[in-house]
Amino acid sequence: MRVNAYAAPAAGEPLAPVTIERRPVGANDVLIEIEFAGICHSDIHTVNGDWGPQPFPVVPGHEIVGRVTEVGADVTRHSVGDRVGVGCMVNSCGECTNCRNGDEQYCLEGMVGTYAATDRDGTTTQGGYSTHVVVDADYVLTVPDGIDPASAAPLLCAGITTYAPLRKWGAGPGVKVAIVGLGGLGHMAVKIAHALGAEVTVLSQSLKKQEDGLRLGADDYFATSDPTTFEQLAGRFDLIVNTVSAKIDLDAYLGLLAVDGTLVNVGAPAEPLSVNVFSLIGARRSFAGSMIGGIALTQEMLDFCAEHHIGAEVEVIKADQVNEAYERVLASDVRYRFVIDAATLA
Amino acid sequence: MRVNAYAAPAAGEPLAPVTIERRPVGANDVLIEIEFAGICHSDIHTVNGDWGPQPFPVVPGHEIVGRVTEVGADVTRHSVGDRVGVGCMVNSCGECTNCRNGDEQYCLEGMVGTYAATDRDGTTTQGGYSTHVVVDADYVLTVPDGIDPASAAPLLCAGITTYAPLRKWGAGPGVKVAIVGLGGLGHMAVKIAHALGAEVTVLSQSLKKQEDGLRLGADDYFATSDPTTFEQLAGRFDLIVNTVSAKIDLDAYLGLLAVDGTLVNVGAPAEPLSVNVFSLIGARRSFAGSMIGGIALTQEMLDFCAEHHIGAEVEVIKADQVNEAYERVLASDVRYRFVIDAATLA
Repeated sequence: MRVNAYAAPAAGEPLAPVTIERRPVGANDVLIEIEFAGICHSDIHTVNGDWGPQPFPVVPGHEIVGRVTEVGADVTRHSVGDRVGVGCMVNSCGECTNCRNGDEQYCLEGMVGTYAATDRDGTTTQGGYSTHVVVDADYVLTVPDGIDPASAAPLLCAGITTYAPLRKWGAGPGVKVAIVGLGGLGHMAVKIAHALGAEVTVLSQSLKKQEDGLRLGADDYFATSDPTTFEQLAGRFDLIVNTVSAKIDLDAYLGLLAVDGTLVNVGAPAEPLSVNVFSLIGARRSFAGSMIGGIALTQEMLDFCAEHHIGAEVEVIKADQVNEAYERVLASDVRYRFVIDAATLA
Repeated sequence: MRVNAYAAPAAGEPLAPVTIERRPVGANDVLIEIEFAGICHSDIHTVNGDWGPQPFPVVPGHEIVGRVTEVGADVTRHSVGDRVGVGCMVNSCGECTNCRNGDEQYCLEGMVGTYAATDRDGTTTQGGYSTHVVVDADYVLTVPDGIDPASAAPLLCAGITTYAPLRKWGAGPGVKVAIVGLGGLGHMAVKIAHALGAEVTVLSQSLKKQEDGLRLGADDYFATSDPTTFEQLAGRFDLIVNTVSAKIDLDAYLGLLAVDGTLVNVGAPAEPLSVNVFSLIGARRSFAGSMIGGIALTQEMLDFCAEHHIGAEVEVIKADQVNEAYERVLASDVRYRFVIDAATLA
């Protein structure tokens, strides 16, 4: 089956229309007619070659929402007509300790990414900037009624990436949570942490988006460019979720944690960070990292978001605006996620 | 009351006999006739000026065991004749959140160290290389019968420093724990982790102390100088307690943790460490720090050690051997803790 898509032909080159082959629908596969695909900063890093050589042409996109149009003989989880989603992974070994524990993203044989990865059958995966995709049913999520499908797409990466650490480190009533950065990930973190009942503070470079932050659910908003912020908030937080991939002054942020507090990075700066161990020892603090979430947790997140009427704030674009959108993401000029309307690829 | 002691007269100078003043026994104070005082690496760092300027002359020693010889009018916890201990702190505000939570070591006004610190009455504290000490009863621990007093002394710092993270991060049956370094702290960590029921592996530079490690309770012993160790043990441990204060290759050690694993530093290298955030994100790992423990937890540790017949492995010395002992600690030539017999100060 040949389908329309947008692909990067080589590192750093603009994306352009292509047709790609989708595999025949296997016994455990689902064919999805894509409605919307979010644009994640990772897409840009990948096609720019920031994360090493890639199997070009690469069709990015791992925030996918659409309708099931065909299912394999053995599929029971999904039916034709269902609204479904696909996130950052489309396969894993299914048998290692981590897979068995529902942490398929940490599969010991390596999870299979939704694009630019080698699938377990040896083929190269291609992502969601496309009209259709065929995915193993076990890696396809149910998108509950009541979330707008365009707003749901970013939940599949930005949503689960922030939901997972907020749940793992106990965001809830009485817990003081800070979110560093108010971008695609950060704005989801604020909405989810607020819905979980936590006291939410945004730490952003400036106060430019303060009004937005408070509207999305933050209780407080501070500018990190103001050095008094770090004095004023010293020892305040139980949990800090850092959504910023740029290098930060880790010791300064660790100083904002109370005893037993944790700072979790969900982005990974390319360069190593420097940490003064006294910043941790002085209050039994932790510095942690978290990457998306397993399939069961992703479903839990989607159900939670539907229940709490949470979706991403999106700007829907046509497929031929993708290169312009990339420029705007790099310039932080989006509130808060671009989503490609896949109908414009047809 | 003037008492005999050993003090460092200035940074880097040998310790020498002195007499120092101990305060009159206040209503909530306990006068202790010291029996034994352990030599901790921190003592050496402090008197060498490695941790900044100090209020010389400094009498080190924060692993103190002795007998109560007098109590103030309001003291109910301790009686004359009791065997008691004093660790790294002798006071704190008692009123902040951390003190109220039993984490006096993280007192928001700063805990008062057992030596070279300014007490809440403005005087400078002097430590346990001395015949007597006067300490607020709330910071005096009960040393249960059944632990040899010389072996008990190092529990007050090395014991609680390792017990606290082992308990906090759940060392117990079915939990795979690695202890980095088999010195004063490390040998206590091995004994305690083993008594808690964990599976214990020692990671030491060489296999020189392997026999000791296994005898103390380790199930496995690996040399970190052998690069295959890091391949062989990749993803193995739930908890790593790093007792080494020297700079380590943090990413290599983080790679030994399973999903959700934690590496806890109980020592703090003077220089910052470098960490590649991917080492954390790739398996939801944490890098944490921990410093001694609160008074209640220290008592719990002493009771646990008595119940499990755990004490430090000690070499008892006379007070006039302290400078030689310092040289040997710096040369890692002690198995595993020097303890001064305070009777030799009389």
